[in-house]
Amino acid sequence: MQENKIIKLTVRDVRFPTSLEQHGSDAMHTDPDYSVAYVVLETDSDAALKGYGLTFTVGRGTEIVVCAVKALSTLVVGKTLKEIVSDFRGFYRLLSSDGQMRWVGPEKGVIQLATAAILNAVWDLWARVEGKPLWKLLVDMHLKQTMLKEGYPAYTTSCAWLGYTDQQLTQLCSEALAQGWTKFKVKVGADLQDDIRRCSLIRKLIGPNNTLMIDANQRWDVNEAITWVTKLAEFHPLWIEEPTCPDDVLGHASISKALAPLGIGVATGEQCHNRVMFKQFLQAAALQFVQIDSCRVGSVNENLAIILMAAKFNVPVCPHAGGVGLCELVQHLILFDYISVSASLNNRMCEYVDHLHEHFKSPTIIRNAHYIPPKDPGYSCEMLEESVQKHQYPDGEVWRAIEQQGKQ
Amino acid sequence: MQENKIIKLTVRDVRFPTSLEQHGSDAMHTDPDYSVAYVVLETDSDAALKGYGLTFTVGRGTEIVVCAVKALSTLVVGKTLKEIVSDFRGFYRLLSSDGQMRWVGPEKGVIQLATAAILNAVWDLWARVEGKPLWKLLVDMHLKQTMLKEGYPAYTTSCAWLGYTDQQLTQLCSEALAQGWTKFKVKVGADLQDDIRRCSLIRKLIGPNNTLMIDANQRWDVNEAITWVTKLAEFHPLWIEEPTCPDDVLGHASISKALAPLGIGVATGEQCHNRVMFKQFLQAAALQFVQIDSCRVGSVNENLAIILMAAKFNVPVCPHAGGVGLCELVQHLILFDYISVSASLNNRMCEYVDHLHEHFKSPTIIRNAHYIPPKDPGYSCEMLEESVQKHQYPDGEVWRAIEQQGKQ
Repeated sequence: MQENKIIKLTVRDVRFPTSLEQHGSDAMHTDPDYSVAYVVLETDSDAALKGYGLTFTVGRGTEIVVCAVKALSTLVVGKTLKEIVSDFRGFYRLLSSDGQMRWVGPEKGVIQLATAAILNAVWDLWARVEGKPLWKLLVDMHLKQTMLKEGYPAYTTSCAWLGYTDQQLTQLCSEALAQGWTKFKVKVGADLQDDIRRCSLIRKLIGPNNTLMIDANQRWDVNEAITWVTKLAEFHPLWIEEPTCPDDVLGHASISKALAPLGIGVATGEQCHNRVMFKQFLQAAALQFVQIDSCRVGSVNENLAIILMAAKFNVPVCPHAGGVGLCELVQHLILFDYISVSASLNNRMCEYVDHLHEHFKSPTIIRNAHYIPPKDPGYSCEMLEESVQKHQYPDGEVWRAIEQQGKQ
Repeated sequence: MQENKIIKLTVRDVRFPTSLEQHGSDAMHTDPDYSVAYVVLETDSDAALKGYGLTFTVGRGTEIVVCAVKALSTLVVGKTLKEIVSDFRGFYRLLSSDGQMRWVGPEKGVIQLATAAILNAVWDLWARVEGKPLWKLLVDMHLKQTMLKEGYPAYTTSCAWLGYTDQQLTQLCSEALAQGWTKFKVKVGADLQDDIRRCSLIRKLIGPNNTLMIDANQRWDVNEAITWVTKLAEFHPLWIEEPTCPDDVLGHASISKALAPLGIGVATGEQCHNRVMFKQFLQAAALQFVQIDSCRVGSVNENLAIILMAAKFNVPVCPHAGGVGLCELVQHLILFDYISVSASLNNRMCEYVDHLHEHFKSPTIIRNAHYIPPKDPGYSCEMLEESVQKHQYPDGEVWRAIEQQGKQ
């Protein structure tokens, strides 16, 4: 491998005004504008060779992540790719354990999101240098296996955001069934009667043999979660996702224990901030589905540790991907999990949402409700330059137009 | 109470170059520059009436907290103090649960530090409006009691930072004994033989009846902590502080269980990011000393919840105050704990470090190793304007001089 010295890091605040149509709405995030802190690394070896990375956010606050990426950038610029990957643990710790910056984390919140954005770009760069999609780079480190012909099973969250009307639910669900979808997630948690009506409607539409999951996005406290979900048990959800505060390991353990007799598992992870938290969730039997996220924790590095721990505890990994870019990235990790770690599809599936893929250079390909393994080199992070410029906040033309129309 | 509308919020990045003399150094933070994101609130009622707040950081990364304070400021400016304090829970949730910004937390890391800085300023403003020091405002809400004549017991961390020589340790410790100090904390965790030598030295200097605590600042993993501390047991430390990752509740529970037969407790909290984490530490018997911090969690609001939980579990609160401004702020909270909640000094004491008090308008007063209750109105957050201007980063004269001298 050439040295490939990183000579420049740029980061931009890119936001999509998704709140205007209630895409992504749930009980806690009522008006998300799907956004990214978008990182591009440039090297000295070849002007065309760049590494693209991002972390997902939901609007306001993205500028704080951008500020954190800038603060961390001094630790990256000047390093060669060879130096980084020959001691990736050391490089990871350099980013996460800077003697001054770790105070504002450590390994959580803004600084961890910024770390993810940068490391995602480093992994993308490495995979591009090797001329492989990231998942292939990962599985080739381990043992080779035949790539799945049929792809990796996906479920859809796009039919039942909390802000959608019953008419929208019915139409979107019917269309998804026609396209071959068999697993559906419904947002719940704001109003019990509303949830009963929506779950009943969807269960009728999809029939008894398809899979239903429900997601409260942290809306409840522990006892409230148990009571509320018990009242939705008649609709046979496979899991309740994020029933309470994402930090409450012991609370999730209580909920898991109470819901086990009803055949409902607990799923969480999209706001679980690092491997130490996942370790405890597994130790305490506090979840039955591990929802890794490609942008919340410290990139591929930390997700590999989480995937291996999940395997040790025999708990399936079902990634979170409800956001912009998250489907593109996490498909690489779940392919690695299947090919090199779990070798099982039992109770396993990867979330899919159908928004904003058109802004990526190598968008996710779904066929018959399965993720088709990407073949382009890299980590599928690269966005279309035109999309970035249009959506850059606050000066891109989309945001200028919204401001002028006074819609927000 | 008048309306006292908040019409302006300013925030500044203020840093003290403490790393030049190794003040504050420990096993993980080898070169801290004690710093604050410093917030001033202005009201429409009286130009002289301002609220001062801060959060503590250790140098790089402060600019990210400043950025986060700016992002949150839109939720504060325009509100009246009356609106805020008449529904303080609602206001707290407005800051911590903004539908977009919560994604970059929630309630942890940068965004929580920024929330603390702002809420500290709001509490300061409220106490000034009432003409009381904050602790008095708090205890008057509850039940009145005679203020302690002798003050609240303190311990010192200033004698044994990791970067100090044995000669410095000996001199500082002897001086402290002469001043009446009876409780001493030693930084450990980088090198076992070094720790044995330092602990032995200090135990000899202070004798068998004074109290020794040790602090590893998260340096170890779980088993390493148990082995290492067992080898320091002969020096009879009261507690081992931050033995491992601050997120590892179950790890701390294992350490607590292993060290209990040696008579050594586990203390932690300075990087415990919210009340839900403290709840679990208490539920799991994972700590024997609760170290609240005035700037890590969501200000007075969240610390009151933590103090009440500690009382419920009968665990003493011994605040963290190793930083700039932390002594000034947390003394109010520990007075509230004593007067209104615990009514006990058993195994209770408040950390004290002797650096940088000269930059505050109402600096902490220590007499005979006790905190003397402050009497000036407010939360003791106000800094001398001259100090702020000199230390503002990167343009204050102190930092310009350091840059010119090329010392850093």
